[in-house]
Amino acid sequence: MPTDDAYFMAQALAEAEKALAADEIPIGAVVVFENQIIGRGYNQTERLRDVTAHAEMLALTAAANYLGNKYLTDCTLYVTIEPCVMCAGASYWAQLKAVVFGADEPKVGFRRHGQLLHRRTQLRGGIQAAACAKLMQQFFSMKRK
Amino acid sequence: MPTDDAYFMAQALAEAEKALAADEIPIGAVVVFENQIIGRGYNQTERLRDVTAHAEMLALTAAANYLGNKYLTDCTLYVTIEPCVMCAGASYWAQLKAVVFGADEPKVGFRRHGQLLHRRTQLRGGIQAAACAKLMQQFFSMKRK
Repeated sequence: MPTDDAYFMAQALAEAEKALAADEIPIGAVVVFENQIIGRGYNQTERLRDVTAHAEMLALTAAANYLGNKYLTDCTLYVTIEPCVMCAGASYWAQLKAVVFGADEPKVGFRRHGQLLHRRTQLRGGIQAAACAKLMQQFFSMKRK
Repeated sequence: MPTDDAYFMAQALAEAEKALAADEIPIGAVVVFENQIIGRGYNQTERLRDVTAHAEMLALTAAANYLGNKYLTDCTLYVTIEPCVMCAGASYWAQLKAVVFGADEPKVGFRRHGQLLHRRTQLRGGIQAAACAKLMQQFFSMKRK
């Protein structure tokens, strides 16, 4: 049974690839409950013209719909890039069991603002960081051309 | 023409009343562009079973849909209670002209985490604070019964 962080981060990366294909900043996320993916999302802020349509937000909403419960206390959020303040705030309200991210985001990642997650939420970073960061570099180097 | 904070906060309060009637934590919000309300929202986290369904998030999404633009640089968000971290983060991405709130929220308001809004966003608080806080007290005293 797939229980490891690398496996689920690969699934989040597959979501990020969808964002890249849609010319969106390539960030993807999945929410896992009892070793099963119950929510997926990729960044769609351009298509939806909505700053709230981050990968994490869409995945959290999908997971809550699946469980019929706004609290995701037994769920883990996997996201390819360190979440922003908004997504950390949503994770706080969802009371997630864990947040697992790929690459650091020093500029707009939430960690520069201190401890924004719920005190019960574990935080792990650096999972498949190189692959997660590479997608971002690919996107921004395409944009610069 | 209605241009003052008290007028638009009264509109946000009308949204909060809808939340109270629906047995939701009574917080309401409106987004104003050129003295016109282009987005409305009230807290619906219970009905939608979704922690992201805060008044501000729904109002910001509605405003972006109206303008066809995810950036709300000439818009002001009015909200009855000091926004949380998630909603402050969404306001950051929207690059709002101003955030105007009613009553302080010392426990889960964003200000305890420092400056989370965009540096171009003005912040004003304490507009119709008593009326905004009273709705919250009314809700929580009903819940305790």
